[in-house]
Amino acid sequence: MSPTPARITAVDTYDIRFPTSRELDGSDAMNPDPDYSAAYVVLRTDADGGPEGHGLAFTIGRGNDVQAAAIGALRGHVVGRDVDGVCADPGAVFRALVDDSQLRWLGPEKGVMHMAVGAVVNAVWDLAAQRAGKPLWRLLAEADPEWLLAQIDFRYITDALTPEEALRILRRGREGAEERTARLLAQGFPAYTTSAGWLGYGDDKLTQLAAQAVADGFTQIKLKVGADLDDDIRRCRAARAAVGPDVRVAIDANQRWDLAEAIRWTRALAEFDPYWIEEPTSPDDILAHAAIREAVAPVKVATGEHAHNRVVFKQMLQAGALDILQIDAARVGGVNENLAILLLAAKFGVPVCPHAGGVGLCELVQHLSMFDYVAVSGTTEDRVIEYVDHLHEHFLDPVVIRDGHYTAPTAPGFSATMRPESVERYTYPGGTYWAADSDRRKGTPA
Amino acid sequence: MSPTPARITAVDTYDIRFPTSRELDGSDAMNPDPDYSAAYVVLRTDADGGPEGHGLAFTIGRGNDVQAAAIGALRGHVVGRDVDGVCADPGAVFRALVDDSQLRWLGPEKGVMHMAVGAVVNAVWDLAAQRAGKPLWRLLAEADPEWLLAQIDFRYITDALTPEEALRILRRGREGAEERTARLLAQGFPAYTTSAGWLGYGDDKLTQLAAQAVADGFTQIKLKVGADLDDDIRRCRAARAAVGPDVRVAIDANQRWDLAEAIRWTRALAEFDPYWIEEPTSPDDILAHAAIREAVAPVKVATGEHAHNRVVFKQMLQAGALDILQIDAARVGGVNENLAILLLAAKFGVPVCPHAGGVGLCELVQHLSMFDYVAVSGTTEDRVIEYVDHLHEHFLDPVVIRDGHYTAPTAPGFSATMRPESVERYTYPGGTYWAADSDRRKGTPA
Repeated sequence: MSPTPARITAVDTYDIRFPTSRELDGSDAMNPDPDYSAAYVVLRTDADGGPEGHGLAFTIGRGNDVQAAAIGALRGHVVGRDVDGVCADPGAVFRALVDDSQLRWLGPEKGVMHMAVGAVVNAVWDLAAQRAGKPLWRLLAEADPEWLLAQIDFRYITDALTPEEALRILRRGREGAEERTARLLAQGFPAYTTSAGWLGYGDDKLTQLAAQAVADGFTQIKLKVGADLDDDIRRCRAARAAVGPDVRVAIDANQRWDLAEAIRWTRALAEFDPYWIEEPTSPDDILAHAAIREAVAPVKVATGEHAHNRVVFKQMLQAGALDILQIDAARVGGVNENLAILLLAAKFGVPVCPHAGGVGLCELVQHLSMFDYVAVSGTTEDRVIEYVDHLHEHFLDPVVIRDGHYTAPTAPGFSATMRPESVERYTYPGGTYWAADSDRRKGTPA
Repeated sequence: MSPTPARITAVDTYDIRFPTSRELDGSDAMNPDPDYSAAYVVLRTDADGGPEGHGLAFTIGRGNDVQAAAIGALRGHVVGRDVDGVCADPGAVFRALVDDSQLRWLGPEKGVMHMAVGAVVNAVWDLAAQRAGKPLWRLLAEADPEWLLAQIDFRYITDALTPEEALRILRRGREGAEERTARLLAQGFPAYTTSAGWLGYGDDKLTQLAAQAVADGFTQIKLKVGADLDDDIRRCRAARAAVGPDVRVAIDANQRWDLAEAIRWTRALAEFDPYWIEEPTSPDDILAHAAIREAVAPVKVATGEHAHNRVVFKQMLQAGALDILQIDAARVGGVNENLAILLLAAKFGVPVCPHAGGVGLCELVQHLSMFDYVAVSGTTEDRVIEYVDHLHEHFLDPVVIRDGHYTAPTAPGFSATMRPESVERYTYPGGTYWAADSDRRKGTPA
């Protein structure tokens, strides 16, 4: 123990990029060559031997430096804060960041600046969970409902969810929570895999990976679609043949279509019994999602990985625009805003199936789904967390998948800490990987 | 003439901040102390003595460095381009910037990254208009309808406006365009003023400025509201008494309320006959705006200065969420996206009354309204451009207001060029003003 209260002493940011574009991992109709990246943030403290807080914003390459700069712009709201106070009320940090009246202009509550808020807020929760000695899902699931309620910013959502309703949901969530925790620890949380279905993969690779997914215990896979309809028909047919009739096959257009095309294209793939169509059009288009949903039923509509805040999710639910709500751990304003979104979904009875993959998104979002199961929705029925099997090796506490399920983390924190050697190697442009890459390029004859 | 085709050689960015917070100019319910700022961009070319292209993103202080960095991240798409080609097809630049598959993740099409796109695209239009020897409004109004059509990205809006419909509107807009141009040059475009109504101003200053606005020929003023209802009642009463019954008094809540509060508060001010209520709630909340509009009629609902792209405007129109559509020159993806928005508004028959003020927003947006009048809507009825009387002295071709009207610019370009001495003085933190300010602060006893 320090003689004086520990304080946050620094908000360090790192521009970390992985050269994933070289293998077409992560390729889809809108993102042909992503270099999966993270604007990584570490909250340092002066607590003797105490934990640091880790968070990140996920990007896909260029602009990761802008994202890191945005995180840095929040520094003044965090450095100097008392660590105990921050951990006792992460919501106060969330509000200070979101309510910065000058930075707010850059959103408001959207894009680069809001993702920066999310990264810092998540780092605060990582710090809080580590100091509490609990994995984040457990800290949330065991928290007092009134305290959780105070972590939520109800601004702009009271027409759909009042604090009183939210409190009722949280209190109801405590009933049977211990049994669900035991079940979660024993069985894990259901996952589905996208690893088979990247658009850049050939049919053989797709078929082989789809069959492997079923052998590995997954009951749902996902295919990227939307670039070419004939290709999609061929790929969906191959995937359906590989997995059989009982495994769910979701399809994901990554915002490729306008309304009419989304309906036409989805109907053209209906014979392969797709479970959901994901991101059929602009993530901002609530009304179009509602129209698409009505037109393509019984195919479900899923969206959310690019929905930029709780106000968009609220409207998606109010308009009946989605069947499946896909939170993302690092797009909105961190855990605090995702608490609001989980409660909105519970109010409307819509299952939450998080977006994941990327860099660290699986590690982070599993905590939110596990909390949702134990203490909000109370069920895993029709709930699955996306799983993509790359880049986990860069994390100190990587996700563990067993028989198509995420194993519940037991280490304290938010599973957000990157390995120091990965940070050193993949920091852009000065890390050892990129420096050597630059040397290689210079050595290549023009 | 250069012997080889001129190329864009640099995209220079400047972080320029004005210390407006010290006078409470610009203060409102959400922005108590803005330092009006611009992430200013200059496209340099190697054309001998040829013009440069100027654009900007407006911010209100902190984070202006992040905004400048975002503009810098677009450099690779612009440097090296052929100047003639760029000016012949600014839409190609727009698409290259918006479609950068990696940068797109940081929005998509929203927040810091999209404002950066807008700044660069507007700089391209400034360059094009200067080279054409025309003010931008005139370049647009005299352009071939088919060429204008090709400047528009219809992605995500075809369910509300097809290219065929847009072309019909543009062709219809040519009928009588010459007479309207003559009228515009003679009379200007109607303005309203917000200079009287900042929230930080006392009642005496408000009353005096409101009366002065009427004396100056304005037929509409605007008051900031939303911090305290008793204050608002007092201020609205004072303003109405000062201007009389025939001058329109708009009120602006700057996103302060949730749905129910917006309705209650607006109704409580209805006795003062407000013309419109602006930004009653979150700019993302299409459904709430529609509900508010229904509840507060005949008070009109106005919004748009924070609507981040054409998809949001499209839905606002589809949902009947607004009576007045407020474009902003520097929030969306520049002229190209604003063309789409103007045509959407024309399709739905909704008047466009731009947001302005800030830094350079009046200078820029007047061109869009003048084009709208001459070649799209064909009328100035119920159309007014916001006017705020500060910071114009920093521009080479500042707006000129006469008898409550914007005078049509005649100098070639987009009126976006800042005075070199202003850039030098207000560049943050190294410009002469801020360096001296820093010295003053250091000299102040703690």
